[in-house]
Amino acid sequence: MLDDLRVDGDRLRRRLATLAEIGDTGDGGCCRLALTDEDKAGRDLVVEWMHELGLEVRIDAIGNVVGRRAGREDTAAVMTGSHIDTVASGGRYDGNLGVLGGLEVVATLNDAEVVTRRPLEVAFFTDEEGARFSPDMLGSMTYAGGLPLEEALDRTDADGLVLGDELDRIGYRGPVPVPGPVPHAFVELHIEQGPVLERQGRTIGAVTGVQGISWRELTIRGQANHAGTTPMALRHDAGFAAGAITQGVRDLVTAMGGPQVGTVGVIDLDPGLTNVVARRARMTVDLRNTDEALLQEAERRLADVVTEVAEAEGVTVDSVSLARFEPVTFDPRVVDLVEATAERLGHSVMRLPAGAGHDAGLLAGVCPAGMVFTPSRDGISHNPAEHTEPEDLDAGADVLLQVVLALAEGELGD
Amino acid sequence: MLDDLRVDGDRLRRRLATLAEIGDTGDGGCCRLALTDEDKAGRDLVVEWMHELGLEVRIDAIGNVVGRRAGREDTAAVMTGSHIDTVASGGRYDGNLGVLGGLEVVATLNDAEVVTRRPLEVAFFTDEEGARFSPDMLGSMTYAGGLPLEEALDRTDADGLVLGDELDRIGYRGPVPVPGPVPHAFVELHIEQGPVLERQGRTIGAVTGVQGISWRELTIRGQANHAGTTPMALRHDAGFAAGAITQGVRDLVTAMGGPQVGTVGVIDLDPGLTNVVARRARMTVDLRNTDEALLQEAERRLADVVTEVAEAEGVTVDSVSLARFEPVTFDPRVVDLVEATAERLGHSVMRLPAGAGHDAGLLAGVCPAGMVFTPSRDGISHNPAEHTEPEDLDAGADVLLQVVLALAEGELGD
Repeated sequence: MLDDLRVDGDRLRRRLATLAEIGDTGDGGCCRLALTDEDKAGRDLVVEWMHELGLEVRIDAIGNVVGRRAGREDTAAVMTGSHIDTVASGGRYDGNLGVLGGLEVVATLNDAEVVTRRPLEVAFFTDEEGARFSPDMLGSMTYAGGLPLEEALDRTDADGLVLGDELDRIGYRGPVPVPGPVPHAFVELHIEQGPVLERQGRTIGAVTGVQGISWRELTIRGQANHAGTTPMALRHDAGFAAGAITQGVRDLVTAMGGPQVGTVGVIDLDPGLTNVVARRARMTVDLRNTDEALLQEAERRLADVVTEVAEAEGVTVDSVSLARFEPVTFDPRVVDLVEATAERLGHSVMRLPAGAGHDAGLLAGVCPAGMVFTPSRDGISHNPAEHTEPEDLDAGADVLLQVVLALAEGELGD
Repeated sequence: MLDDLRVDGDRLRRRLATLAEIGDTGDGGCCRLALTDEDKAGRDLVVEWMHELGLEVRIDAIGNVVGRRAGREDTAAVMTGSHIDTVASGGRYDGNLGVLGGLEVVATLNDAEVVTRRPLEVAFFTDEEGARFSPDMLGSMTYAGGLPLEEALDRTDADGLVLGDELDRIGYRGPVPVPGPVPHAFVELHIEQGPVLERQGRTIGAVTGVQGISWRELTIRGQANHAGTTPMALRHDAGFAAGAITQGVRDLVTAMGGPQVGTVGVIDLDPGLTNVVARRARMTVDLRNTDEALLQEAERRLADVVTEVAEAEGVTVDSVSLARFEPVTFDPRVVDLVEATAERLGHSVMRLPAGAGHDAGLLAGVCPAGMVFTPSRDGISHNPAEHTEPEDLDAGADVLLQVVLALAEGELGD
């Protein structure tokens, strides 16, 4: 009988639409940067829903919010959830689907008057996007003990505002200590934010792990010179060096192949004038791989490219790590469970790694964890055009429900 | 006796220092963008000096100012001059040396009570830098008939202010029609703005011509995508394309060699985030050569690079010409005269092309023209650190004086 439980898709989608009204950007998108007034309003709404669903709400010292549903046994809970903060030009599904999918699981169980063996918890974590305060996944990292509380509270945004102060300002610095209690297991429903499920015609992704991420910021210092009067041999062109490194990043990624990806998303030239050889360039390099050894190999190759270009052009390059996450491998039992559950419910499914960081990647450090992906139209995310078809949202929430039920009833043993 | 005339270097340098106080940026530099209040104050000062020196001042419809000193014969004048507008972070010598050098020639002739056969004219041209209103050399281009007056007056700056209105506002829209009267000859004293004279240990440059200039703005349109979740094969990365084209520009310049130079001074990525494949890139390419056929060859090669990169990456590229000047070859008689005069005065001299555009390049379209270069310390210009040694300023002004005298006495015949 538990096997036949399904979520109420209309209710889930109504909640998604209601939450999306807060920070509505008018073009289908959402802007609820972490700890802004919009984030507070979104938090207040979700907390209200948690109370309506009978959950016991706790808020921890970094503003993570957990709603708890008691089980038949007072043991470690099965936790699900995600985040409700967005990037500046965010969509309505990234993060929100995981949180409101979790509430929909609770609502479905409430309606069916099911009490699970283990307690259930639905969480939303602070500042997952890292769009306002770095690093991303700040809240779940602090929950899982990967970032000391004081360091997290001291982070500042681009305007110099301090995270701890902003947490106080919106009333979400809670009394519960971090790191938080270790869940029995953690499973997160999320949109893929990539094109693979859609391209492969699959409804559900059983996520095998999270790519490791290496972000570096390179500051190249050359010499400003007149673009007409300076012979090529006398140039120390920071702009050329940035271009050559960008080409080098692509070359190393192509040479390595496989799951290796690499992106130069930022290039700024100073002074940035048509007829002036750039004195300074700032650029970022984003390298990702599912395999830690290969990611390190990519980092070594990048360092070689930088050294080579710098020596040839007579420029200096400061290379600073902006973020570094090792790849995460999800618990194979959870991955198997997600895959088998999707198949049992009649949804096409495939295994794939997550290309983006997720709260589940941090929770995986302390408990068995996994993720359920739903397709993203055209692979688009962090964009007002972010979209997942209603039937895919429902399928994802059904899989989440059945996976949570299985975990709560003892799938992984005691 | 005329051959023995020399300028008063102290007086020249006092005038340079006094003019540099207007728009003084406090760091040794000057900001007198064209047709601003600072430009007006600079113009007023130079016009006052022209009156003090007995020159008859005329202002034309685009704001070019010409001070005329009568000759023994009422024929076409020998004209010298340059500009007094600067870039935002300008130095004190670029342009100003040519104008105040011209006034110093007049002052020296006044002191010696010399009346030349032909009239002499000292001009400063509007908006040479193009830093506020494009194109650069706007005033001399209009003077020489290369730009219709109405088009010049309609140019707008970054704030949407109209050139003609600004000319009215500062009181420098004059009654004299353009194109202006064709001079007998034009010679311009200017700092090199490059490192060649200093590197070669020469005091004077006899400028053979002006490099041709081809500026293009490329707008690359790809597709914004998540830097982690998008497989490399599915990307249309505008940022990578910008990097590859930057590398391609350097490659074509290196392959062509000789006087070919090429610069990518602007690269802007949109949205410009570490973890987002850029949807759009804007970049500029500055190509210069002293030979028109070679410059066209460079432009063809650039177009090939752009096509190749666009096809390989699946992006589109709009390529717009921002500026295009054919190379200018100065009258060989004027070049010979500058070189011979410098040698006669005991200054080391070399021939070289100008890498930057100059008013003399526009005047060369209507009359025999040439330039006298003085060294720039470290090749630095368009910068508060712009510097030319006092003795080099004096040497340049002495060469200008003797060249102007020779031209005014009939060096080129009638």
